[in-house]
Amino acid sequence: MPLLQSHMAREIAEQPHTVAATLDALHPLRERLRRLAEGRPHLLFIGRGTSDNAAVYGRYLCEIHSGRRATLAAPSLATHYRTEPDLSDTVAVAVSQSGRTAEIVETQAWAAAHGALTVAVTNEGDGPLARQADIALVTAAGTERAVPATKTYTAQLTALAVLADALGPEPGPLLRGLGRVPEQIRAVLTGTSGTEAAAELIASAPGGQVVVGRGITQTTALELALKLEETCLRPVRGLSYADLKHGPLAVLDEHMAVIVVAPPSGLVLSGLTDLVRTVRATGARVVGIGGDAEFADACSLALRTPSLSGTGPAGLSEVLAPLPLIVAGQLLAEATAHHLGLDPDRPRSLTKVTQTDS
Amino acid sequence: MPLLQSHMAREIAEQPHTVAATLDALHPLRERLRRLAEGRPHLLFIGRGTSDNAAVYGRYLCEIHSGRRATLAAPSLATHYRTEPDLSDTVAVAVSQSGRTAEIVETQAWAAAHGALTVAVTNEGDGPLARQADIALVTAAGTERAVPATKTYTAQLTALAVLADALGPEPGPLLRGLGRVPEQIRAVLTGTSGTEAAAELIASAPGGQVVVGRGITQTTALELALKLEETCLRPVRGLSYADLKHGPLAVLDEHMAVIVVAPPSGLVLSGLTDLVRTVRATGARVVGIGGDAEFADACSLALRTPSLSGTGPAGLSEVLAPLPLIVAGQLLAEATAHHLGLDPDRPRSLTKVTQTDS
Repeated sequence: MPLLQSHMAREIAEQPHTVAATLDALHPLRERLRRLAEGRPHLLFIGRGTSDNAAVYGRYLCEIHSGRRATLAAPSLATHYRTEPDLSDTVAVAVSQSGRTAEIVETQAWAAAHGALTVAVTNEGDGPLARQADIALVTAAGTERAVPATKTYTAQLTALAVLADALGPEPGPLLRGLGRVPEQIRAVLTGTSGTEAAAELIASAPGGQVVVGRGITQTTALELALKLEETCLRPVRGLSYADLKHGPLAVLDEHMAVIVVAPPSGLVLSGLTDLVRTVRATGARVVGIGGDAEFADACSLALRTPSLSGTGPAGLSEVLAPLPLIVAGQLLAEATAHHLGLDPDRPRSLTKVTQTDS
Repeated sequence: MPLLQSHMAREIAEQPHTVAATLDALHPLRERLRRLAEGRPHLLFIGRGTSDNAAVYGRYLCEIHSGRRATLAAPSLATHYRTEPDLSDTVAVAVSQSGRTAEIVETQAWAAAHGALTVAVTNEGDGPLARQADIALVTAAGTERAVPATKTYTAQLTALAVLADALGPEPGPLLRGLGRVPEQIRAVLTGTSGTEAAAELIASAPGGQVVVGRGITQTTALELALKLEETCLRPVRGLSYADLKHGPLAVLDEHMAVIVVAPPSGLVLSGLTDLVRTVRATGARVVGIGGDAEFADACSLALRTPSLSGTGPAGLSEVLAPLPLIVAGQLLAEATAHHLGLDPDRPRSLTKVTQTDS
């Protein structure tokens, strides 16, 4: 029924193309990025909403892969408290789909005025964020019609991976992995089972939903929570593994659904598998996204994409897993909205460009 | 009915003494802190749960007051991804009430091994965190029996304010302000009206609760959300003003209660007052804590502490407002638990020392 498809569903399906086109557009900038960041060990990421979730990815990826040190900006320090730091050791990376959110544009200008060199990650090459940046990483997502961001988010992750690759000690491996991501996203789009059953479980949990990730999948948990919130109009919290253990674990019970997002391998996976068991012991039901077979078996219900499992040469690296993982999450959010009889394209109270300031 | 009082209520009431005793114990360390941080413009704050909420305060206060640059650590970068940064420009500040949370102790050791000098903020002078730190700021909160932390949190804020004062360009003004905080907390304990009505409003909101702050009161929003969650066993999210506008605003309706925490004056107050009006337009009811008369009048219901309002010489400075503000929030959380027939001292699934790792 293509005529009844939501904009969101169509934009989710475009992502193999979006990632490939963004990678083609940006990889020639690698050498310029490397030179810009020479002698600047600090990165300052600036974003809000979906772009802030992308900034969380940039923070982890640049610290893990490139050895830089990264901070998530608190924009009010710039826009309201007007602090006067010395940013001459810093590259500021401002992320905004529209490139027009006033708070982000103002914080980027503040960073430049205090000595930072600036990189913009934006989908609008002629917006103020791109124009005032030293280097603009303009993503190739095209026009996004649905209010919930999907393809612009994966395009931002692609741009941030190009940046991390450029700043790494030995540029190249991340870019090679990124080259396989469009195919991995296609595998999610065509080969994932369990989405409808998971949507029904989530839609029918009377006590609400929580989404949990850890380390590199923290970005996915935050972004999936925001997608569920925007499309399903109910409060959904995105948390880290540690945040959950330090308090919110107390509120879980059999009325709640917990979504856990795990990378296919790596150092945080076993802890997330244990967490699934701890959460299930409270009575809450767990929907798993990603992970390995042991992780999926521990969950009440898991989205399964056979071609993504395993860690062979064609498999998915831990640090790039957030790209295909969020696509599975977007499909789940869109399906859950339909289960609830809602239009995922048009959340009430939200518009495409959010202005924070007043 | 003193015999029926919860441990939490008794510990809330101890806080004028806790803050005064902690200030007495720590202000002699000011000069040592100043020397330790010489030539190190970066601060890295390490904490989880309540201590992470205190770290958020340390981050804002040190950036606003002392001109340092501050980052909230992502402990998994140390404990799982084992990154190898150069921290020779950094003072790492690890915050843990017990000083025994393994993840925090390990992250502090990782920071020291990579060149950081370290400060511990802890209530246990003979715990591993204090023993391995270059300078231990041992708070004087005494034994805390209730699982929800109250007096140890305000003691942590006091220690972090002593640190920010020591690192400031002109040490002194924060300490003088801190000297007035015990009296301001006493005014909250004895002179706040509206707590019972607010507890009833919150306990009876079927759609749940959200707590919102901005800038320096972000710590208060996060910490009050955690207190409500721990004592009332329901999911409560702490958010910044900007986070709320970038998505969660869509889920507010007449079934929800939103608690907004504002400083008594300063640059973020007018935006928070506007936010109250925006939230009320969704039908949600707003409980206000802090702010000025215009802010309180905009709310559906406000906790009022007459002696804290105004910005005269005896009034409350914006950057120290989180100390008395959270006390009002603690009273509210404790009262809400009683409304729900719950024991605030003993949340299910939680213990006093949370271990994150596995």
